[in-house]
Amino acid sequence: MDIAKPYLLFLGDVRDQLAAKVAHGLYHWRPDWCVGQLRLPGCGADTGAPDLDVPAAMARGARTLVVAVANAGGTLDPAWTPTIVAAIEAGLDIASGLHVRLRDVPEIAAAAERRGVRLVDVRHADRTFATGKGDVRPGRRLLTVGTDCSVGKKYTALALEKELRDAGVAADFRATGQTGVLVSGRGAAIDAVVADFISGAVEWISPAADPDHWDIIEGQGSLFHPSFSGVTLGLLHGAQPDAFVVCHEPTRRTMRGVQAPVPSIAEVITATELLGRVTNPAIRCVGIAVNTERLDEAAAVSYLRRAAAAHALPAVDPVRFGCGPLVEHLLADFGLSARAA
Amino acid sequence: MDIAKPYLLFLGDVRDQLAAKVAHGLYHWRPDWCVGQLRLPGCGADTGAPDLDVPAAMARGARTLVVAVANAGGTLDPAWTPTIVAAIEAGLDIASGLHVRLRDVPEIAAAAERRGVRLVDVRHADRTFATGKGDVRPGRRLLTVGTDCSVGKKYTALALEKELRDAGVAADFRATGQTGVLVSGRGAAIDAVVADFISGAVEWISPAADPDHWDIIEGQGSLFHPSFSGVTLGLLHGAQPDAFVVCHEPTRRTMRGVQAPVPSIAEVITATELLGRVTNPAIRCVGIAVNTERLDEAAAVSYLRRAAAAHALPAVDPVRFGCGPLVEHLLADFGLSARAA
Repeated sequence: MDIAKPYLLFLGDVRDQLAAKVAHGLYHWRPDWCVGQLRLPGCGADTGAPDLDVPAAMARGARTLVVAVANAGGTLDPAWTPTIVAAIEAGLDIASGLHVRLRDVPEIAAAAERRGVRLVDVRHADRTFATGKGDVRPGRRLLTVGTDCSVGKKYTALALEKELRDAGVAADFRATGQTGVLVSGRGAAIDAVVADFISGAVEWISPAADPDHWDIIEGQGSLFHPSFSGVTLGLLHGAQPDAFVVCHEPTRRTMRGVQAPVPSIAEVITATELLGRVTNPAIRCVGIAVNTERLDEAAAVSYLRRAAAAHALPAVDPVRFGCGPLVEHLLADFGLSARAA
Repeated sequence: MDIAKPYLLFLGDVRDQLAAKVAHGLYHWRPDWCVGQLRLPGCGADTGAPDLDVPAAMARGARTLVVAVANAGGTLDPAWTPTIVAAIEAGLDIASGLHVRLRDVPEIAAAAERRGVRLVDVRHADRTFATGKGDVRPGRRLLTVGTDCSVGKKYTALALEKELRDAGVAADFRATGQTGVLVSGRGAAIDAVVADFISGAVEWISPAADPDHWDIIEGQGSLFHPSFSGVTLGLLHGAQPDAFVVCHEPTRRTMRGVQAPVPSIAEVITATELLGRVTNPAIRCVGIAVNTERLDEAAAVSYLRRAAAAHALPAVDPVRFGCGPLVEHLLADFGLSARAA
């Protein structure tokens, strides 16, 4: 699923910043892939990227209009169709991570057919997968796992890719969800794969690589989440990680959307090691990434200190303080030395 | 997915008994649902059911022709199409558990449309599912889990349903695979569900029931199988079982289709309890079901005795010796008394 870059970020007329979180993620992690943003009157979100219309974006080289919004139903607002059709008429590809398929909107399908541009529905794989094999693949792999959904697994993986690259280590973020696919321009949304093929899809996402190369694989869900644990375990077995990082949000009491309590970091480490050994007997936890957004700075520092002591591992908040200690530990644990990039 | 009964079992011209395992399973477990079998010249399989043509089967009340064969690709032999079309013309519904959809064979689709009969593709759910919620549902549930695929999880569940009913306990087998759906006439093949909806599908398969009622849920795969573990964990969380039985084949060294070693019974108990607690904190193992087919009788008896002692649980071979001790233990453990049926 290669998406032609650079992008023009389409925010529609969404009310608030949260509804534009795909755009924020893209502009935060890939500012050089984004020539600007296109907002309709009344839009309450702003990524900070230059406001451009389609001709201005194309003059700056834009090749794809990305519908960079998220909403509960995964629907496309009919009021946005004319703008999307106009972008198609001008020759832009269109990409979307919504549940609804672009080709299922007749005006969009017809315009794309007429103009010969690509419609990329990121959520829906454009290929079939084999079942997972579990065979050892060369290359190193790190997986971000979580005590729950939405605790920073994607952010942590992208932050690790960046800091490892800065340290001179060959590292690639591997996307397993729709936003990650848009940020990296490849990968697959494994929550939309047929159940028998979850681990097989991940084996495809993170193929054999050079022995010194690190794939930093975006985690999904939680082994303890009653809705999505199947995705999480198939991902763990397909990823066959050498190392994993546990992501956690310390103020949450029940998991997202359900009544089940959030498991402890220790429970997640135990279960991930127990089951991860199936495809990588040497699997080990290399650190903890905590989303301390809801704690004040003193409480955040104190929480990280206690978590590090409790597990004898580095504990970081990638957003607030960066991943430094975690990267140092990983490099030392795997006998790598930081090189000048 | 209700399939009109009784069935005429269609074996085509398959070469051997193994290729007709769906038919064997149906005739073994549901002889009263099967008026007979329909075999083409050269067929090397025989369930023992009466050989009937379509008119004779209909005279005995048949309502559905079941394509009761299994093959690697899940394909439908074109040589069988005329027989299927003739059955449609006579007014029979058609059911199939193959990968290929009946409606994708043009002659079959056209005949069904013309005659107004139903085509039931058991492998493909005819509905969408919600994501799993993990909320506690009334009723008791037992799940068969395994150290591997194809170790007797379906057979054990069906045997338990029968012996519990014989003991006067309200019990229903709940199918999660295509053969199980055909045997029970309901359920869903959860390996064909989109990954995000595995546990939600199982919540639908095993809904709220009377507090004294037991759902005996057919397990799939293994938490330790690198290809299918995601299906297994989603099934465990959706089933929220009070009790589980570990199924095992003692002569197997690596898991089916992969190089990973078969886990021990103890490892499966530990992992199932650890993760099963998410949706049922009281989950416990109530016994071990061993497929001793490859052991002689003395070795089988000895193996079962040792397994029972090692785990302090009843160990049975449901095919060879029945489930008696396991059912007795379950009844005692849950404070049930065997009543005359």
